[in-house]
Amino acid sequence: MKRLLLIGIGAGDPDHLTLQAVKAIAATDVFFIVDKGAEKRDLTDLRHQMIKDHAREPHRVVTATDPERDRTATAYAEAVEDWRERRGVLYHQMIDEALGENQVGAFLIWGDPGVYDSTLAALEGLPADIEIEVVPGVSAVAALTARHRIGLTRVARPVHLTTGRRLADEGPSADDMVVMLDARLAFEGLDDFDIYWGAYLGTPDEILVAGPVAEVAPKIRELRAEARERKGWIMDTYLLRRR
Amino acid sequence: MKRLLLIGIGAGDPDHLTLQAVKAIAATDVFFIVDKGAEKRDLTDLRHQMIKDHAREPHRVVTATDPERDRTATAYAEAVEDWRERRGVLYHQMIDEALGENQVGAFLIWGDPGVYDSTLAALEGLPADIEIEVVPGVSAVAALTARHRIGLTRVARPVHLTTGRRLADEGPSADDMVVMLDARLAFEGLDDFDIYWGAYLGTPDEILVAGPVAEVAPKIRELRAEARERKGWIMDTYLLRRR
Repeated sequence: MKRLLLIGIGAGDPDHLTLQAVKAIAATDVFFIVDKGAEKRDLTDLRHQMIKDHAREPHRVVTATDPERDRTATAYAEAVEDWRERRGVLYHQMIDEALGENQVGAFLIWGDPGVYDSTLAALEGLPADIEIEVVPGVSAVAALTARHRIGLTRVARPVHLTTGRRLADEGPSADDMVVMLDARLAFEGLDDFDIYWGAYLGTPDEILVAGPVAEVAPKIRELRAEARERKGWIMDTYLLRRR
Repeated sequence: MKRLLLIGIGAGDPDHLTLQAVKAIAATDVFFIVDKGAEKRDLTDLRHQMIKDHAREPHRVVTATDPERDRTATAYAEAVEDWRERRGVLYHQMIDEALGENQVGAFLIWGDPGVYDSTLAALEGLPADIEIEVVPGVSAVAALTARHRIGLTRVARPVHLTTGRRLADEGPSADDMVVMLDARLAFEGLDDFDIYWGAYLGTPDEILVAGPVAEVAPKIRELRAEARERKGWIMDTYLLRRR
């Protein structure tokens, strides 16, 4: 048998690692790291640092380069599906080549492995002798609400977790929404909402803005563009709450 | 100044604690523990164990008994609001009496402090010299999807986080829903959904069931009643996914 761990590493702060994740890293023989290009070097660096801090010796680190995704495609879901398929082939190859009998392999996954992450999907159809185990992590959503000192949920009220693309296309679907993966600032114009926005959560670069959308949207647009320019990438998320 | 920490302790497994939470516990002078009665003794015991494992000496543990909630009230939100108000008074009193100048106090909060937890709300209006800090945790939702080895989100799709009461009253609001606080088995009859159910997640008593609602609902009903009877309390959650 072989084991493959999908380890949630939290939203950016090395101390978001759970004790379970620390133990899982210490039990790993082979780490699989997929390089997403220079612009996300910070994210890869954090993974390498965690391995340095918590892995046992000897261990092996296998790196690969993430397949390109067609970001110009209008059929978003199909483009992502195609990219996931190529990613799946890559992941299966890496594991097939590097993970030996009775070994433990691991992917270190930003946030929580269940929230808008494609690793589980990319690993579908692995050989039957590989057992997958998922280690839950602190999601960007939990980090966001913690830093703003607000609840995600209001009493007896639902929350919708959605994407920027969907919010832009369909408009608000609830009084409380968490929006992820929003490159187009879909919150602009939603003037009956408050927004709790955060970028690079848990890291020294963290930026937080909260207030009525009508008041703070221009500030978020500016800070976001500035940070993206300076760092070469941005990872942000926000909660919208109808006033 | 005084500091008050709301520390997410994860969904039941002591190893769900993050390194940040461990450090926060070690920095705490006064722990506030609200006893919810014998039926939830297990939950209180876990908190005491975490304090034993990670707190520094000396520290102080202040306990109180949670106000009774009117569970017969038809106006659910109002009943909860009233209970929260009494809870707020209790919390303010505890803090006022026990937290000294330059001290750090802490509440240890099940799961993540942002998800259907009332502590933040109960602490509204604290004196200005008390600074609140929230330490995010592994939510029951993250624990659930990890144990079932599924994603919470499907590609480019939203997820609704809601309560059993709301699902029972309003019916399904999305193809993917996470339901919490469901004492009435509101999933029954939703035969075009798959369910991923879990109780006592992360603990030795954990129970997991997954499958089409039409097939597994009777089994969940039975296991749930049995476990509730045996342990005196139950904490469960589930994901519904339209097939």
